[in-house]
Amino acid sequence: MIKAYAATEAGGPLKPFEYDPGPLGRQEVELDVEYCGICHSDLSMLNNEWGMSQYPLVLGHEVVGIINSIGEDVKHLKVGDRVGLGWHSGYCGTCSPCLTGDQNLCLTHQGTIVGRHGGFAEQVRAQAAATVKLPEGLDVAGAGPLLCGGITVFNPLVQFGLKPTARVGVIGIGGLGHMALQFLRAWGCEVTAFTSSDAKIKEALEMGAHRTVNSRDSKALAAEVGRFDLILSTVNVKLDWNAYMGALKPRGRLHLVGATLEPLDIGVFSLIGGQKEVSGSPVGSPAVIAEMLEFAARHGIKPVVEIYPMDQVNEAMDRLRSGKARYRIVLTR
Amino acid sequence: MIKAYAATEAGGPLKPFEYDPGPLGRQEVELDVEYCGICHSDLSMLNNEWGMSQYPLVLGHEVVGIINSIGEDVKHLKVGDRVGLGWHSGYCGTCSPCLTGDQNLCLTHQGTIVGRHGGFAEQVRAQAAATVKLPEGLDVAGAGPLLCGGITVFNPLVQFGLKPTARVGVIGIGGLGHMALQFLRAWGCEVTAFTSSDAKIKEALEMGAHRTVNSRDSKALAAEVGRFDLILSTVNVKLDWNAYMGALKPRGRLHLVGATLEPLDIGVFSLIGGQKEVSGSPVGSPAVIAEMLEFAARHGIKPVVEIYPMDQVNEAMDRLRSGKARYRIVLTR
Repeated sequence: MIKAYAATEAGGPLKPFEYDPGPLGRQEVELDVEYCGICHSDLSMLNNEWGMSQYPLVLGHEVVGIINSIGEDVKHLKVGDRVGLGWHSGYCGTCSPCLTGDQNLCLTHQGTIVGRHGGFAEQVRAQAAATVKLPEGLDVAGAGPLLCGGITVFNPLVQFGLKPTARVGVIGIGGLGHMALQFLRAWGCEVTAFTSSDAKIKEALEMGAHRTVNSRDSKALAAEVGRFDLILSTVNVKLDWNAYMGALKPRGRLHLVGATLEPLDIGVFSLIGGQKEVSGSPVGSPAVIAEMLEFAARHGIKPVVEIYPMDQVNEAMDRLRSGKARYRIVLTR
Repeated sequence: MIKAYAATEAGGPLKPFEYDPGPLGRQEVELDVEYCGICHSDLSMLNNEWGMSQYPLVLGHEVVGIINSIGEDVKHLKVGDRVGLGWHSGYCGTCSPCLTGDQNLCLTHQGTIVGRHGGFAEQVRAQAAATVKLPEGLDVAGAGPLLCGGITVFNPLVQFGLKPTARVGVIGIGGLGHMALQFLRAWGCEVTAFTSSDAKIKEALEMGAHRTVNSRDSKALAAEVGRFDLILSTVNVKLDWNAYMGALKPRGRLHLVGATLEPLDIGVFSLIGGQKEVSGSPVGSPAVIAEMLEFAARHGIKPVVEIYPMDQVNEAMDRLRSGKARYRIVLTR
């Protein structure tokens, strides 16, 4: 039996819960959870905002743990390895995206907390191929948030071959954005933080931004015209997207990892004139996660976290709801 | 004096007109016009739809001509060369896009019919760097439309490194789309024509489409889910963009070269989930125009044109306005 915390209804509190995971699959591993980050999508799943939650529901998809057992077909990992597990807990392995290394785009991927139980628990299981061994030198307590939030902002740098000579803007300095600043600074780019919070200016500069722009000051935004190769939006609210399009250089890209519900309303002329692009992406493949972890370890990149013991999971969820967490929350056993 | 046809007011008829072009610039060439295509943007400029027309206005920016004189700094062209001239008649040569081979994105480019006189004339001038020598074997009478409409649909194939293994959809089988079908077929792709016109199905298949889909049949469109690597839209009306996003594979791209005035209203989730992209682009650089012309010559690609003598330019403009031209109109002297 695996001891966990589960919600039994949408939006309900997380209560102690035990479940029998059955026999370990041939391609699976089971982890003893050491740390598990809390991501905003845990809250969305708790509230069934995306209509795909099943209760009882064990949240948690930013897991760092030690392998305690491996399925008989698993050859590349061993008991005792410390691995990370993120949003995806399994891939089909045979669709076109899987076969071309884009497992994160697998047409039938398995979500760690979608129809199965996640990391707010003593143990969690996953397909071995969906876990990634943590490199030496990585801050273990801060690794959890890298596995979902971190890879979400790191993956675009890899996907679009971002050059260290680029000028990059990051919109929203929160759970995702504060990691993006660190990655981009280490990547060699000129880094601008767009934030509406005066309180975050100093922190943004400390975390890697060379400069900040007030994202609610339309005059300040207009002064940025033609500056950026890439603008990475981590927010989930509607902004003046056309103003940000104007802040791009020719060939510039507005890339969205924050899921706003409102459509984009981007003018076609602003795309055509300067050959600009708008795109989005979800997390990343295991290979890119491994690259990210090695990059983070080499550059000392780590999320800023608040750590809660797992038995205070409801207090931790309240803290997340408050929007005051600086910047990610991690549970530990 | 150069003899031409000019409009003296927005939307007015084109009348015989003479102007003194002054001394030839050191970096310019003067062409004796042989052919000049009519593009929909000539009509937009005639009507001052973009607020940048100056009258008297000599339209025409799909010019094929023979160089009759060259400026003293021009070394790579000579009198007697047959060249093409498209939307751009000059580049600054020193901005970042110019210096990186993206002259078509030059921040201060000169438009052939923007504040100067174009190709509905016996002669036309341009910066030598903005003209492109026509290769042997190219159909001269049909070359004009390649220089604006053709490069507009060809350029994205180059810019995004389209693979011949790709499945590509073309929305709108008209002046631009009928050239796109030919280019894509020769490029090696699987080519689907989206058209709302039953009358164009047979022609689309003859011009290179492997298959056609009725763009107004939402059920037919829904059946295309996840099929395309690239969908190229040549229309200037609002479509159900999210349905086309759904027709893209993971990593797929919706690329717009038709300038719709309404914003795009694309859902952010449809970008993020499959790492999809939306983009646009204008014409192309001289180097890509030269590649296109060589490719067209090698593959026997040519616009389908209706040819009018230049002194029937008003009848030709009426024909364009009627929307009945199959598929491009070319004036000849």
